[in-house]
Amino acid sequence: MGRGRTVSQIVRKVADGESGRSPDQVIVEEPLEVRLDGKRVSTTMRTPGHDYELAVGFCFTEGLLAGAPVRTVRYCATGSAVDTAFNVVTVETGGLAPEPAPRLTTTTSSCGWCGTDQVDDVAARLTPLTGERAVFAPDLLASVPERVAPHQELFDATGGVHAAAAFDAGGEVVLVREDIGRHNAVDKVVGRLALDGRVPAGGLGLFVSGRTSFEIIQKAWAAGFGTVVAVSAPSSLAVEASKRAGITLAGFARPGRVNLYTER
Amino acid sequence: MGRGRTVSQIVRKVADGESGRSPDQVIVEEPLEVRLDGKRVSTTMRTPGHDYELAVGFCFTEGLLAGAPVRTVRYCATGSAVDTAFNVVTVETGGLAPEPAPRLTTTTSSCGWCGTDQVDDVAARLTPLTGERAVFAPDLLASVPERVAPHQELFDATGGVHAAAAFDAGGEVVLVREDIGRHNAVDKVVGRLALDGRVPAGGLGLFVSGRTSFEIIQKAWAAGFGTVVAVSAPSSLAVEASKRAGITLAGFARPGRVNLYTER
Repeated sequence: MGRGRTVSQIVRKVADGESGRSPDQVIVEEPLEVRLDGKRVSTTMRTPGHDYELAVGFCFTEGLLAGAPVRTVRYCATGSAVDTAFNVVTVETGGLAPEPAPRLTTTTSSCGWCGTDQVDDVAARLTPLTGERAVFAPDLLASVPERVAPHQELFDATGGVHAAAAFDAGGEVVLVREDIGRHNAVDKVVGRLALDGRVPAGGLGLFVSGRTSFEIIQKAWAAGFGTVVAVSAPSSLAVEASKRAGITLAGFARPGRVNLYTER
Repeated sequence: MGRGRTVSQIVRKVADGESGRSPDQVIVEEPLEVRLDGKRVSTTMRTPGHDYELAVGFCFTEGLLAGAPVRTVRYCATGSAVDTAFNVVTVETGGLAPEPAPRLTTTTSSCGWCGTDQVDDVAARLTPLTGERAVFAPDLLASVPERVAPHQELFDATGGVHAAAAFDAGGEVVLVREDIGRHNAVDKVVGRLALDGRVPAGGLGLFVSGRTSFEIIQKAWAAGFGTVVAVSAPSSLAVEASKRAGITLAGFARPGRVNLYTER
């Protein structure tokens, strides 16, 4: 559909004490709303491309079609900016698909930021980061994964679980939580800090064991972390949100090497 | 809370032509419902443990507390089996937290299977797998990741994206889709097959580039795939659902090696 699926981003790459800025490709993350016979059934953060397949596949695999034929699939204008017209896809069965069951409707952490201007909405609802925030040297950020690794006991046992951690200005690991869901691991870290009266957590950095999505940055922002470091890549929307929030976002951290996507 | 976070599973490990069965640890995946002042605000698939932190952290990072104090956090009986009492956590602010905004409420792919007996619910709603299904030799399954790799162009560019693929009985890769969301990549594959009138897809196997969660198995089941092979680990609920569905579930596939968690 001519929609970019990767975007070029200037990244500061630090490796073995050397530092240089160069363009790097980042995967695009954008919300897509799926409607079935006019009714919203899903909003998902996705990479643009094959959106019709995604919409039909979602309706099919969630059992929403229940054997009804797909008559048309189309992008649906939302009445707002032209660009957002591509972020809503409607699957039409001519009313032959059953009404989605009420039990399918709930609230999840990944669906609050749908539709247009989602980053602006976050900025409006959450207090922008202010106050004292620790600054971490790149070599410290590069060392965080190996500092956290000894605490990842469930990963050691199963190889199938994410970790999140908080670390202090000296690089000491303060708290580690593991969960099959990346956002759950972050919520567990933030929940512990909140219960202990330690939020906003500007004196600490947040580590995630996988990739960084928009949602992770939104959660870090809510908890007041000024720095997020990940083992793997960020999404386009994670980089954009970090810029707006004034969060330092690091990725691909490993001994002696780290990429800085945003810096305060 | 005494809840297991890993579970022992008998796995058939195939390596370099040798095959043996031995126990392996699998990460536990179970639904948790979070309530705020009596109102459900989230259902998430999580690894048990630190559930209070998860519930408080979710309410905090999603902005649902909005500065309200957390007065109590407790497990909440659902009136059903004793065991499920541990899968609902209530955060109480004494009514000081605002009503969750309506825009936060939507339907996502990961929230339909909440509460009790979720696997039974799936079994009731989706047609159980019947009919002809291809059987794949372990060495073919072990080779799928390297067959798919040349098609993962977005991963090559960014290092931050998942892939799903369909492959046939000869090991040929029929279809590859990439997305920042693992379940989206699967939906794109299934959507393409559905649009082409190729579901149920019993003659094909499904590949996923990461871990296998319950949701992935549910989607594979809906599309009629009799075999799922993943690069990484499955969850406990993915194994359980595969057993019930009669799906062959393989994980940790790499050249010459693969683990079989369930087999028809």
